[in-house]
Amino acid sequence: MLSIEKYQEEFVAYLEEYATIKEPENLYIPIQYILGLGGKRLRPVLTLMTAEIFNSDYKKALDAALSIEVFHNFSLVHDDIMDDAPLRRGQETVHEKWDINRGILSGDAMLIMAYQLFENYEANTFQALARLFSKTAIEVCEGQQYDVDFETRNDVTIPEYLKMIEYKTAVLVGAAMKMGAIVANASEADQNSIYEFGRHLGVAFQLQDDYLDAFGNPETFGKQVGGDIIENKKTYLYLKALEFSSKEDQLKLRDLFNTTPKNNDAKISIAKQIFNTSGASNVTQEEIKNYTNKAFLVLESLDISEEKKTLLYDFGTDLMNRNV
Amino acid sequence: MLSIEKYQEEFVAYLEEYATIKEPENLYIPIQYILGLGGKRLRPVLTLMTAEIFNSDYKKALDAALSIEVFHNFSLVHDDIMDDAPLRRGQETVHEKWDINRGILSGDAMLIMAYQLFENYEANTFQALARLFSKTAIEVCEGQQYDVDFETRNDVTIPEYLKMIEYKTAVLVGAAMKMGAIVANASEADQNSIYEFGRHLGVAFQLQDDYLDAFGNPETFGKQVGGDIIENKKTYLYLKALEFSSKEDQLKLRDLFNTTPKNNDAKISIAKQIFNTSGASNVTQEEIKNYTNKAFLVLESLDISEEKKTLLYDFGTDLMNRNV
Repeated sequence: MLSIEKYQEEFVAYLEEYATIKEPENLYIPIQYILGLGGKRLRPVLTLMTAEIFNSDYKKALDAALSIEVFHNFSLVHDDIMDDAPLRRGQETVHEKWDINRGILSGDAMLIMAYQLFENYEANTFQALARLFSKTAIEVCEGQQYDVDFETRNDVTIPEYLKMIEYKTAVLVGAAMKMGAIVANASEADQNSIYEFGRHLGVAFQLQDDYLDAFGNPETFGKQVGGDIIENKKTYLYLKALEFSSKEDQLKLRDLFNTTPKNNDAKISIAKQIFNTSGASNVTQEEIKNYTNKAFLVLESLDISEEKKTLLYDFGTDLMNRNV
Repeated sequence: MLSIEKYQEEFVAYLEEYATIKEPENLYIPIQYILGLGGKRLRPVLTLMTAEIFNSDYKKALDAALSIEVFHNFSLVHDDIMDDAPLRRGQETVHEKWDINRGILSGDAMLIMAYQLFENYEANTFQALARLFSKTAIEVCEGQQYDVDFETRNDVTIPEYLKMIEYKTAVLVGAAMKMGAIVANASEADQNSIYEFGRHLGVAFQLQDDYLDAFGNPETFGKQVGGDIIENKKTYLYLKALEFSSKEDQLKLRDLFNTTPKNNDAKISIAKQIFNTSGASNVTQEEIKNYTNKAFLVLESLDISEEKKTLLYDFGTDLMNRNV
C-alpha cells in the first residue's frame, strides 16, 4: 500500500494526462480548468486505496477514481451556477470566468465523460460500476434539490437534514470506496460493508464541515469562517440550536437568519454564542463521533487483515480530527 | 411489424407508466412535464422498428427507446436554457415555467436516468448500449457547442455546418436505430449499416428542417415560418445563398442578418427571395435528396428481406416529403 500523499500524486499525474483540450475548445477548456483547480482529491484517493485494501493494484482503479473526480467536478460546476457562487477553491467559478451556458454544457459533457471512464473495464465490472454510479449520481441530484428546497422552508427537521447531506455528500464517498472494491473483485459483502463505511464517514465529514465553518481556526480553515452563517444556511448546528435553545434565543436566531447585514461580525458572533450556549456545538461534535464510530463498527465485519483495518481506522480518525 | 402509429402508441403508453413523480417532487415534476409535451417520438419509434427489422420483439427495445427519448428531452431542456427559448412544442419551456436551476437539475437527472434505462439488459448488451450512448451524447454536446460558437462567427463553412448538424441531430437518429439493432443481436456489419442509414437520414431531416423553416406552408408547418431568419440563424440556406449570390446580394443578406426589426415581414421576404434567386433553395433540396439517397444506398448492404428494406425506404421517402 502507498501513502495517502503518494496516491494523490499518482492520481493527479493520471488526471493531468487525461484533461487535455479537444475540439470544440470552448467545451473542453472549462473542463480542464475546473479539473485543474486542485482540492484534496479525497474521493479518488479512497477509490485507489480501497482497491489495494482488497488486494488489487491501485493502477487498475485509476479510471474508476477519475470517474468519481470528474463527476464530483461536474456537480461543483452545476451547483456553483445554482448557488450563484463566484469562487471555487479561491478561483473564479466556471460560469463566472466564462458564462452560464459554458458552465451548463461543459458540466453535461463531464457527466458523460465520467461514464466513459468505465469503458475499459470488462462487461460485468462495467455494468456494476455504471449501476452504482447512476444510483449515486441520482441521489446527489436529489440531495441538491433537497438543499435548494430547504432554503425556503422553515420547518426542516433533523432527519430531513441528515438525509440531505447523506445524498448530497456521503453516498459519493461510499461509492468511491465501493468502486475500488468492485474493481478489485471483492466479495459482495465486503463491497457493501466498505460502502457503509464510506457513507457513515461521509456524513461525519459533512457535519464536521458544518462545525468547522463556524468554529474552525481562521488561520488554517482556508474558507471564510462563518460563511454558512452569513448565507443563512440551515446547517446541523443551526437546527440543533433551534431545538435546544430558549424561546427567546430561538426567536433571536430565526431573526438573525433572516438578515443580511453589511458587516457580519456581530451576526456571526451572536450565532456562534447561541450555538454554544444551546449545546448545539457539543451535540454536533457528539454526532460527528457517532457517525465515525458507526463507520468503525463496520470495519470489524470486513474480510481484510488487521493491518488494513488499522489503516482505514487511522484514515477516519485523521478525518475526524482535521481542522481544514 | 407494426405500423408507425402503433409503435408510437405503444411507446407513449410505456413512457407514461415510466414518468411518475417521486420525492423530491421539485426534481421530478419538470421531468414528467417535458416528457409529456408530446412530439413525433421519431427517435424511439425508430429504435422499436429497427429491433423488429432485425427479428426481435419490439418490447425488448422499449427501455432503449425510452433512454433515447429521455436523453433527447434532457438536451431540449438544457438547450432551451442556453437559447433562452420561451416555448417548446407550443408550451412554456421548463426554465420559463419554473426557473433556470430547476431546468439544470432536472436535465442532469434525466441524463443519468437515460443510462439507468439500460440496466435491465445483460452485461454485454448493457456495455454496448452505454458505450454508443456516451459517444453519441458527447457528440450532441459538441454539436451544441459548435452551434453556439457559430452564432458569433461570420466565416462558418459548409463542411463545418454539416458537421455541426451531424453531431447535434443526426448521430442521435443513427444511435436510436443502432440501439434497436444491438438489442436484437444483429451482426456488427448490420449494426454499423443501420447507424449510417440513420445518420444520413438525420442530416437530410435537419436540412429539411432548415428548408421548411423558410419555405414551409404556414398552415401545416406548426412553427412560425421564417423563425430562423428572424433569429439570424446561419442555416444551410443562408450559407449557400452567401456562396452563390452576387456581391450585392451577399452584402444585403449579411446586413439583413445583423438586424432585428420589429416587423419581420420585409426581412423574411427579402431573405427568401435571395435564397431563391441565388439558387440556394434548389441546392438545399438537392442536398436533402443526396443525403436521403446516401441512406438508401446503405440499405442495399443490409442482411434483411426486401420487404423490410422497402419499409425503411418508405420511411425515408415519407420523411423527405414531409411538410411538417
